[in-house]
Amino acid sequence: MSPVTKTVFVGLLAAFATAGAQSPSTEQELAETIIKKAMAENQAIRILERIVSVGPRLSGSPQTAAAVELTRQMMVDLGFEDVHLEPVKVPRWVRGPVEKALIVNSHTLGTVPLAITALGGSGATPEGGLTAEVVEVRSIEEARNLGDQLRGKITFFNRPMNPTELETFRAYGGAVDQRVRGPAVAAQAGAVAALVRSITTRHDNVPHTGVTIFRKGERVIPAAAVSLQGADLLHQVLSAEGTVRVHLELACSTLTDVPSANVVAQITGRERPGEIVLLGAHLDSWDVGQGAHDDGAGCAHVIEALRLLKELGLRPRRTIRGVLFMNEENGSRGARAYPKAPQRRGEVHVAAIESDRGGFAPRGFTVSADSSTVSAFRRWAAAFRALGADRFTRGGGGADISPLRRDGTLTLGLNVECARYFDVHHSSNDVLEAVNGRELEMGAAAMAIMAYLLAEEGVPR
Amino acid sequence: MSPVTKTVFVGLLAAFATAGAQSPSTEQELAETIIKKAMAENQAIRILERIVSVGPRLSGSPQTAAAVELTRQMMVDLGFEDVHLEPVKVPRWVRGPVEKALIVNSHTLGTVPLAITALGGSGATPEGGLTAEVVEVRSIEEARNLGDQLRGKITFFNRPMNPTELETFRAYGGAVDQRVRGPAVAAQAGAVAALVRSITTRHDNVPHTGVTIFRKGERVIPAAAVSLQGADLLHQVLSAEGTVRVHLELACSTLTDVPSANVVAQITGRERPGEIVLLGAHLDSWDVGQGAHDDGAGCAHVIEALRLLKELGLRPRRTIRGVLFMNEENGSRGARAYPKAPQRRGEVHVAAIESDRGGFAPRGFTVSADSSTVSAFRRWAAAFRALGADRFTRGGGGADISPLRRDGTLTLGLNVECARYFDVHHSSNDVLEAVNGRELEMGAAAMAIMAYLLAEEGVPR
Repeated sequence: MSPVTKTVFVGLLAAFATAGAQSPSTEQELAETIIKKAMAENQAIRILERIVSVGPRLSGSPQTAAAVELTRQMMVDLGFEDVHLEPVKVPRWVRGPVEKALIVNSHTLGTVPLAITALGGSGATPEGGLTAEVVEVRSIEEARNLGDQLRGKITFFNRPMNPTELETFRAYGGAVDQRVRGPAVAAQAGAVAALVRSITTRHDNVPHTGVTIFRKGERVIPAAAVSLQGADLLHQVLSAEGTVRVHLELACSTLTDVPSANVVAQITGRERPGEIVLLGAHLDSWDVGQGAHDDGAGCAHVIEALRLLKELGLRPRRTIRGVLFMNEENGSRGARAYPKAPQRRGEVHVAAIESDRGGFAPRGFTVSADSSTVSAFRRWAAAFRALGADRFTRGGGGADISPLRRDGTLTLGLNVECARYFDVHHSSNDVLEAVNGRELEMGAAAMAIMAYLLAEEGVPR
Repeated sequence: MSPVTKTVFVGLLAAFATAGAQSPSTEQELAETIIKKAMAENQAIRILERIVSVGPRLSGSPQTAAAVELTRQMMVDLGFEDVHLEPVKVPRWVRGPVEKALIVNSHTLGTVPLAITALGGSGATPEGGLTAEVVEVRSIEEARNLGDQLRGKITFFNRPMNPTELETFRAYGGAVDQRVRGPAVAAQAGAVAALVRSITTRHDNVPHTGVTIFRKGERVIPAAAVSLQGADLLHQVLSAEGTVRVHLELACSTLTDVPSANVVAQITGRERPGEIVLLGAHLDSWDVGQGAHDDGAGCAHVIEALRLLKELGLRPRRTIRGVLFMNEENGSRGARAYPKAPQRRGEVHVAAIESDRGGFAPRGFTVSADSSTVSAFRRWAAAFRALGADRFTRGGGGADISPLRRDGTLTLGLNVECARYFDVHHSSNDVLEAVNGRELEMGAAAMAIMAYLLAEEGVPR
């Protein structure tokens, strides 16, 4: 920290400490200082490089254990306070060495491979695979209605994301039920396996994985995502020939739960250390690609936001805590464990902000609250304008902090330009190269500004 | 066009035709219909694919002639009206087969190649190249002050874009003078060549070209951009060793001007056909990469915006005209010719909107007007909110339409998320793959909505 910056900030700090509600110009000065440091040093992408260097981070994997230790050590090295791990047991699903799907002997095309990836939670096929007729459906409801007609068949869920939905997270939400619960519903009707059209915006031959859930007592069947090109081919052959048989081979397995941890660190508040503003993201990812956008980017946002505040010597009234949650992708065990941890005794969570929408240019924040609270946040819009992150809208705060929201904590989500996110999400294309360093850094600056304002001024009313 | 859509639009059209100033809800309905069609059909990226398929489009090149014919034919096929070419003579600068730069015999590194690209307008070196000592400067002013100390040397302009400037176009504007006029200033002081740090935000080994201007009577010297890694290496060797010699070889040449054309088409206004709302972009590009973002994306915006309006059966009160300008990159001959063309007699240009900031997600519009006019545009913000394109700010309207602005026309620029633009700008990385189809389409929808509102309602006051 340069002496000049230090002087500016001691001044700012004094102003914040004494003035109560802040004038917009002070908030803008704070924002400008954070943004300048962020963009000049451009460290978020360096942090992300280190996180993805361990390999994909599926819960319970050795790579994920390495990521826990790496980020803990990084936080110690950066001088954060109270750096520690909070243990949590996580599921351990393992992709097998074999993932194969073939359209078998179509009249017109012969035998054609389909690009697939097992869904997390999928069962294995019998050794050597299974071959069965395919029944295409557009929805879980349609699968339910077909009932016994699915017996002995492979159910193929093929409803695309709505392309006219600009908010791609909403389009994702409108399609993902097929993946999450489709295979279990198909299993109930006696299906031997399920294929699901990849939930993606990119029309290529890359399949996108994700969780599929079989509840306790439900029959577990093999379930895989098929690429969009594969899904369209399957649909065309079905339309042309009436029946299609697919050979499917998956060797995945579910092992016993293993120990893991949430990674926690903070800048302790100068006046009300027990009042917490939480910055959250999830450290685990899928086992394809690098989990660079999902959610390596969010972890980089959290660490970089704390780094910026720490190095600028900003110690707000309340504590700003970073939490890298474990197991968001297939169980949310970390999210559920956090509020119940012994460390929470005597703590009050004033607000929690999650970054889990990728490392794209920030657009603003979603706020899980009524419209009058959302309007109150708009008072701070000027501080976020230069980043283009000055939109405050009602909406979800993110999966990792939703247990906190249910306990009454105000939750916010960092909102970003989302047109590209589902091109790469849960696929082998979710790699560092798909993340732009400047865009990532802008998100970190937005997180830092929001955390500081909340920790210093409290929730605006 | 579906019958349903047609009914909606006949209704909308009637409303627009009779109601004068529109209620926000009607503007939002219009916007929603345009956006739905745009996102469902996703044609902008198909249009761009065709444009870049001819190869890079440097003014006067055979590829550019092909692009003129291709886009003219495309506009005919899409049913646009009054499709025609407006002739313009353009410069013809040709990159040579040889582009080479070497640090010669550094004490520590020996002889090391530098990644360079000739600047458009550069002179050639003597056959076999030239070798001279390098003098590093940070600004044109510094070069001027050094004066005679540059004689016989290679002047190396090495001031980076300001990384803390979030609006990368401003950062570009703060550095590009070195490239545009640096070589000529160096030549005045007797330099034998100039190297310029690439004006880019991406720290890699790819050089970024662009125009350098030698005015009439000025001595033309060889001038090349060097990659950021190359520029940093050169700086380090200079700092460590005090003197560095570079061998430079460029075989470029300037031929005589050749005929080319602006490509023009329109949807003729139903009530005031002689009042024009212009949608502009430039068809030429640099001769490296594909000119996909610069400005193939803008051309795709213009054509797709017209296509959307045309196919929705929207014929506004005034004419909406698309113009693909020729030669923005190294002469602006198309921009200067357009207002003077014989076709302009009796025409009034109400407004002109340019897209020349890449095919990224739209953020809003810059308006070349006083703040009260900018505020008046904000009345339409709701129509652009779903696209995230509802920011109206004072600012430039784009190079191609600036002659119209000087003649009194209100000009607007499509503003987009700009963090990545200068990563690829004027380089071999400006290729189709760097453009996201959804983001491009959102920009086209924003252009279509703005053009229609202006053509139907006039400039808001």
